[in-house]
Amino acid sequence: MGDDSYAAALREQIAQAVNDVRETTPLAQSFTNFVTMNLVANAQLAAGGTAAMSFLPDDVIDTAEIAGSNYINVGTLLPFFKDALPEIAYKLHKNGKTWVLDPVAAGIGKTRTAILESFRTYPPTIVRGNASEIIALDAMWGLAQHDSTVPGTRPAGVEAVDEVDSAVDAAKRVARHLAKYSPVGAGAVAVSGAVDLVTDGERVFRLPGGSAMMTKITGAGCSLGGVTATYLAVAEPLVAAISASLLYNRASEIAEAKSSGPGSFQVALLDALWNVTAEEVAASEIIID
Amino acid sequence: MGDDSYAAALREQIAQAVNDVRETTPLAQSFTNFVTMNLVANAQLAAGGTAAMSFLPDDVIDTAEIAGSNYINVGTLLPFFKDALPEIAYKLHKNGKTWVLDPVAAGIGKTRTAILESFRTYPPTIVRGNASEIIALDAMWGLAQHDSTVPGTRPAGVEAVDEVDSAVDAAKRVARHLAKYSPVGAGAVAVSGAVDLVTDGERVFRLPGGSAMMTKITGAGCSLGGVTATYLAVAEPLVAAISASLLYNRASEIAEAKSSGPGSFQVALLDALWNVTAEEVAASEIIID
Amino acid sequence: MGDDSYAAALREQIAQAVNDVRETTPLAQSFTNFVTMNLVANAQLAAGGTAAMSFLPDDVIDTAEIAGSNYINVGTLLPFFKDALPEIAYKLHKNGKTWVLDPVAAGIGKTRTAILESFRTYPPTIVRGNASEIIALDAMWGLAQHDSTVPGTRPAGVEAVDEVDSAVDAAKRVARHLAKYSPVGAGAVAVSGAVDLVTDGERVFRLPGGSAMMTKITGAGCSLGGVTATYLAVAEPLVAAISASLLYNRASEIAEAKSSGPGSFQVALLDALWNVTAEEVAASEIIID
Repeated sequence: MGDDSYAAALREQIAQAVNDVRETTPLAQSFTNFVTMNLVANAQLAAGGTAAMSFLPDDVIDTAEIAGSNYINVGTLLPFFKDALPEIAYKLHKNGKTWVLDPVAAGIGKTRTAILESFRTYPPTIVRGNASEIIALDAMWGLAQHDSTVPGTRPAGVEAVDEVDSAVDAAKRVARHLAKYSPVGAGAVAVSGAVDLVTDGERVFRLPGGSAMMTKITGAGCSLGGVTATYLAVAEPLVAAISASLLYNRASEIAEAKSSGPGSFQVALLDALWNVTAEEVAASEIIID
Repeated sequence: MGDDSYAAALREQIAQAVNDVRETTPLAQSFTNFVTMNLVANAQLAAGGTAAMSFLPDDVIDTAEIAGSNYINVGTLLPFFKDALPEIAYKLHKNGKTWVLDPVAAGIGKTRTAILESFRTYPPTIVRGNASEIIALDAMWGLAQHDSTVPGTRPAGVEAVDEVDSAVDAAKRVARHLAKYSPVGAGAVAVSGAVDLVTDGERVFRLPGGSAMMTKITGAGCSLGGVTATYLAVAEPLVAAISASLLYNRASEIAEAKSSGPGSFQVALLDALWNVTAEEVAASEIIID
Repeated sequence: MGDDSYAAALREQIAQAVNDVRETTPLAQSFTNFVTMNLVANAQLAAGGTAAMSFLPDDVIDTAEIAGSNYINVGTLLPFFKDALPEIAYKLHKNGKTWVLDPVAAGIGKTRTAILESFRTYPPTIVRGNASEIIALDAMWGLAQHDSTVPGTRPAGVEAVDEVDSAVDAAKRVARHLAKYSPVGAGAVAVSGAVDLVTDGERVFRLPGGSAMMTKITGAGCSLGGVTATYLAVAEPLVAAISASLLYNRASEIAEAKSSGPGSFQVALLDALWNVTAEEVAASEIIID
């Protein structure tokens, strides 16, 4: 399949994912941080899905049985998370459930590091984070030295001006690691930045646009992670990650145009997630490496 | 008293409750879930009350001394809730304090089940939930077999199209159980749905209207539960439950007309809770069985 | 320096603080309550700073290394806070880090009392609260009897109509106590009320204006505390406390004029925090005792 027909097929899958979420209102469960969980739930609802938040392993595993996918975010930790999160990751793996990881603040705090390291063995299906977080996760999981395509190297360009580009190699390695363990045979990594980047470990997709106001409200990234889980309930990992990022880029552009500060921007963002059409999302610029 | 004069007296009590909350700004304390607690507090303030949220038994029991009523919601559980919530229910009972229970996700997770079962002995004054949750609670508390009016039966119609109607019998049984233990000698159950239903265990009140957008924001039901506690601080259980549901129905209709998506709907809902008049609320359609 | 030139210099420092935050986007870390943490983070972002929320000592202390200041709010307590918060206060002290305390509900619950009492030895740099909370903290720390200027007296006027005025002596004593232990050699106390009051323990500043709608949304005070920490990252305690209070007074006046209820007020408040100019803030009325 040539690049043009590949892109055309991809756009069809994106439109399908956006519509499927709105028609089937899939449940995505979250174990997420306390700051932004309200926005995560509201964004999932605004995208057309439904939301449930849980913290106890028995609750999470019960709810996972009726959920289409799951979302874990390590932004704010409580002491019991140290045991609960590895247990949950193991049980989701054992039960063949897909999940999205948001490795917020990866590298800060020994508890968070212990939790993120534990996910190496029972990894998520998709990771969504900023460049530093993806690079930190790649390093924590020691993927560079296990990857025959880049033997022994360390992530390069951490201080590069273009943050997202600095994480390309790490993102591809992490995506390949996810795919190896994925209950659906594939994984994806989404790196948020001025130009978002998504990869399945082979191809790299750059998604320009969006709004700088996204960095002036709390939870823009977290809620994108949550909506990625909503899409993962109806689409394969690569399509889910691209669709969610594109939905956010288009919605945030609409919201910026309609708002006059971060308060009205967040309100307009939720409205735009609800109103933007599948066609608008699927027609987005996608740069394929 | 005939049905007409009964309804007229009820409407007067509803108007009184709406006005009393606005004039006396009663404090309702919440032990509630982390997703929606901000909206619960803001809704209580918008209705005219004041809010306080607590999780530790010593904090909850101290605050209960200065609060007009209390609200407990089991949506998101932490490990220590398993001991804290039964202890709190016992102490509220011992101290003669009223409280509203929102049995979110009743039936999911063994920790939640253990907590909800424990409330049988020291029950709330009002329960507010959706049809499935009320049916689950009725089953957990084994009320069908203890109820001489429906000996040995199980809740019927769980899969009925009209969910709320499927929960009528369970709601009445639960309400009678609450009344038996109530510090104010009465209890009520509110079932949220397309047409809300409220019962004190004898009469059944159906409250048509409201907005389908309520299901597109997180915490619509939780915040209604919180506002029910605010009203319980100034009115008897049946009047509190009906008044809060009617306030929400009228406010959500106003909000839907003024908004263009779930973001602006939530903003407009809080504004409408603040601006809707006691007369508008009391003039609502009420279908009395 | 005369009072006029003192005030002129102060206004310059206030304008500088407002601009510095917007230009340097300092990180202020929060250990804060679950009800209002989303608004705290969004307010810090709207003021121009950046936000991070943490609860575990290892996480807090790691993040404090990269943060410009910190904010602790005891509004909603979990069991492990009883050990974690004294440990964090000690380590912030040992590492010479500044922090702002919001003693929400001081005096209620024995766990909260134990935590607040423990802060006497390793105190914050700024305390921001309402009059009752400042008076309670002064009493808990036993400052009246240790203060040679008011030997053996108890806080007077707790039931005074003008709450803020009733807390003047307590606020001055607390501010002097903070200054004694401060890593920057100075402390400040801000008392929120109809007319806000700020003191460094010597001078007293009254800041008229603001909006009564601030009491109709949850987290107005908490988010002012968070923004005070943002300003403390770029300014000395007295200037930080005054600047944050003035920013809030001007922004809340703008928001009240633009809104039609508590929902739209909160949205407009965040927009106004973003849009109000440093000159508008610095030109505010300031009454210096």
